[in-house]
Amino acid sequence: MVTEEFTVDPETPGWVVRVTMPPPSLQDNSADADRLSRALMRAFAAERIHIDLDLRKQLPGLLREGNHALRCIVLKDQGCAVLVHAVPDAVAVILGGLAVDLGTTRVVLRLVDLERRRVLAETAFDNPQTAIGPDVLARIHHADQPDGLAQLQEMIVTALNRHAQTLCRTQGLTPENLHVVSVAGNTAMSHLLAGLPVHWMIREPYIPATNRFDLFPAAQIGLKCHPQAQVLLFPNVGSYFGGDLIAGILYSGLHRRAETALLVDVGTNAEVVLGNREWLIACAGAAGPALEGGVTRMGTTAAPGVIDRVRIDPRTRAFDIHTIDDLPPRGICGSGVIDLAAQLFTAGMIDIRGKFVPTACGDRLTVKDGLASLTIVPAESAAENRSLSISQADMDSLVRSKAAMYTILETLTCSMGIPLDELPAFYVAGTFGSYIDPRSAITIGMLPDLPLAHFKSMGNTSLGGATLALLTREAVTDIDAIRNGITYLELNVNQDFMNRFSAAKFIPHTDPARFPSVKLPE
Amino acid sequence: MVTEEFTVDPETPGWVVRVTMPPPSLQDNSADADRLSRALMRAFAAERIHIDLDLRKQLPGLLREGNHALRCIVLKDQGCAVLVHAVPDAVAVILGGLAVDLGTTRVVLRLVDLERRRVLAETAFDNPQTAIGPDVLARIHHADQPDGLAQLQEMIVTALNRHAQTLCRTQGLTPENLHVVSVAGNTAMSHLLAGLPVHWMIREPYIPATNRFDLFPAAQIGLKCHPQAQVLLFPNVGSYFGGDLIAGILYSGLHRRAETALLVDVGTNAEVVLGNREWLIACAGAAGPALEGGVTRMGTTAAPGVIDRVRIDPRTRAFDIHTIDDLPPRGICGSGVIDLAAQLFTAGMIDIRGKFVPTACGDRLTVKDGLASLTIVPAESAAENRSLSISQADMDSLVRSKAAMYTILETLTCSMGIPLDELPAFYVAGTFGSYIDPRSAITIGMLPDLPLAHFKSMGNTSLGGATLALLTREAVTDIDAIRNGITYLELNVNQDFMNRFSAAKFIPHTDPARFPSVKLPE
Repeated sequence: MVTEEFTVDPETPGWVVRVTMPPPSLQDNSADADRLSRALMRAFAAERIHIDLDLRKQLPGLLREGNHALRCIVLKDQGCAVLVHAVPDAVAVILGGLAVDLGTTRVVLRLVDLERRRVLAETAFDNPQTAIGPDVLARIHHADQPDGLAQLQEMIVTALNRHAQTLCRTQGLTPENLHVVSVAGNTAMSHLLAGLPVHWMIREPYIPATNRFDLFPAAQIGLKCHPQAQVLLFPNVGSYFGGDLIAGILYSGLHRRAETALLVDVGTNAEVVLGNREWLIACAGAAGPALEGGVTRMGTTAAPGVIDRVRIDPRTRAFDIHTIDDLPPRGICGSGVIDLAAQLFTAGMIDIRGKFVPTACGDRLTVKDGLASLTIVPAESAAENRSLSISQADMDSLVRSKAAMYTILETLTCSMGIPLDELPAFYVAGTFGSYIDPRSAITIGMLPDLPLAHFKSMGNTSLGGATLALLTREAVTDIDAIRNGITYLELNVNQDFMNRFSAAKFIPHTDPARFPSVKLPE
Repeated sequence: MVTEEFTVDPETPGWVVRVTMPPPSLQDNSADADRLSRALMRAFAAERIHIDLDLRKQLPGLLREGNHALRCIVLKDQGCAVLVHAVPDAVAVILGGLAVDLGTTRVVLRLVDLERRRVLAETAFDNPQTAIGPDVLARIHHADQPDGLAQLQEMIVTALNRHAQTLCRTQGLTPENLHVVSVAGNTAMSHLLAGLPVHWMIREPYIPATNRFDLFPAAQIGLKCHPQAQVLLFPNVGSYFGGDLIAGILYSGLHRRAETALLVDVGTNAEVVLGNREWLIACAGAAGPALEGGVTRMGTTAAPGVIDRVRIDPRTRAFDIHTIDDLPPRGICGSGVIDLAAQLFTAGMIDIRGKFVPTACGDRLTVKDGLASLTIVPAESAAENRSLSISQADMDSLVRSKAAMYTILETLTCSMGIPLDELPAFYVAGTFGSYIDPRSAITIGMLPDLPLAHFKSMGNTSLGGATLALLTREAVTDIDAIRNGITYLELNVNQDFMNRFSAAKFIPHTDPARFPSVKLPE
């Protein structure tokens, strides 16, 4: 499943170049590697090119076989060009690359043609480290055990190898066709893939082993690709701001536009970036203690039979439920929960604190062991006869989460003196972002009350950024510029945060004037 | 046997630095590797530092163990700094390096302390590739056979590993203490060590696989050192101008002086460099067809019992022979042959064409199968009762060789408009250079007739340069500057050469006015 057509401007140069050199003569008898270096330094405007010894071994043969015309894959790392692969110009072979969105729960792979610069195929799988622990914290603790880090690394590398091979096979290729692996993940996932210690990352003052990884050989971490393949692992800004966010900014183009925009990525954490081509400021939800519940904890991953849209008739309070692929309901995803809460509020079934209103909820409300619960789908209409419901505790958690999200947005925009309700563009990333109904998110006061046209769903921006890095040279320059230019706002040391958070724990807000479009129930 | 005390100016910085970083805090929570990178980039004035993934793994532990004070070994490669090793400051351990003179026939190893910047020990062994072929050409042909290249590489790597381990042991160290290996060899030896193809090197237009090697991990070619150790293999200028010569220039300091000087290295080939801090021009004897016989072919390596000095009484024509360690004569080394020829000429026993003069040689001259031969030591005075003699063919070969050497010197100086007999300094490198008597070399017209004080024997300049690269940072900048600044004069395409060569095939020269200090025999 290729979710979208990925296109790059054909004017922007990519990583594959064809170089033709004059054949050596007594008048120009420089060495093979030096002759090629000169040509590549010109082509890539680099002052220096690194050619691995194993590649130097092949050059005399390749140059003569190709009549001194080669197609070369070159990467750039902090201004230094690195030759990754070379083939005689006439040899027809796909020069492939692999883009990886290394998620904590889900990993997405995309196979690309580096030369024709297009996406060939895509696949996804659950991160096998989930067997060790569902969240980052559990895996970091596991890494402290003997061989724990090596075990976690091996799990993800083995899975990547297996799925990359299957993906290649769909296009008649093998892992030998993979020359560059571009990986965007959060700081912990990136460290675990690289086999770097994560112990200090979760202990004050939260220090990762590294923020930049430099290019490294895929073989060094056991990735089965072409023997000379290189890994481009996106850099982090800190323990709580990873390469996935850098990739997201890269893909959104936030850093290239004159107008100030906001990018929100709601995955396991909520991460927010505000900025334009002049400046970028960011913060991440995991640093805010109020987000611990997680915006999407109660929702399951979007899958067939999962509720993604809910409508409640404000008069009859009848539920109109939509599931993915129209199958019998078997769960509810994050966007479904937000829809549900918005509709419950509009129908007067929850109050401004998010508490169930017994008179309005009627039969749907049950109380067991002192805990109120609202039936969404009765057993007889649900898959496997298992009724779906949402408890008051779930609803309280959602209110805390939406309040945290809004507070993060408010704190960040406020820090730059920009009114939250005047943002010209608001990008929502992540699978969550693809399904969310902005209208519902505004109703519960999770997103600001902007005109709907200002919201734009970006899909998997992490994967998008990882792909861009494989297809355009400017992406790698941009990655460095984003990383070096970004200011990270530490939420957990901000005094205003808790005050704003308390005010946001109402639906839509303590100050309803901020949400003029939201109609309050009678 | 440490042949000389090797000292460096303590003011010039070396590769080991102590860096102390402020401990991380919430205010300065950059990652461990980035914190160290910043400190090292400051210390080394580099815009970029490469830290291998395997080193990044160790940094969090090392930084905390060392209270954020580390001793680091950093190398520089074309402006990019490379972290090679780091230890907590308080840990007492020798940070060692290995300098290698990778000769075609003889390999010399020097163990150095990178931190205290001194030579600890030295050893030498015969290049085991000699079993394949005594000269470069035979080995290059062997490399064309299946596995031939791999076999040649393995031979030298195995020998280096064995002798390096023994050398380390003399100082209570192990190969794990070796962090940098600096190797200077000719182009073919360097290629064979690196496992690079040599096939095209001996075929017109004589193209090596590479001229620069970049730093590469010692482990990549099977050298047993510290796992993160790096190899600094001196670059070549071309197939006939190798890293050994670059190392020689570096050690001689030719490239740093205002006055123009000449450096001659007579090893298996004769290589000559002329220049100063403004310019450098070089040529190598292997390119000159007349040198094919080799200046030192008939001479054996200097060893106990080998004749290194000969005096002949011009009146009585009695021989006064000196051998190394005063043992019974069993051979004659290159410098002994030159001494012999000079004395034979002065005593009137050879004429200006180098032909034996029967009347003057008397009983010492025998003719067998039409070939005249002169007895140097009769059987009864020689080791193992085997008489030592020199044939007319040997003498002709010597005359051709000395003529070639003089012609190379003349061609080179002439190309720059500098009179050969006005050179202020004349450096002679190589073991040959250590033994040669300049007076004798002038007498036969091999070296120009300069005041003896202008000649300076430099010893093993190739090893000296390899050692310098381990001890001073400026050496590596100099290597690049020398390599990029040098002009290589192709002798085999020079028309004047053969004319000059014919004129030089007389003792001392067709034009005796060039050698005013040489007394011609009556």
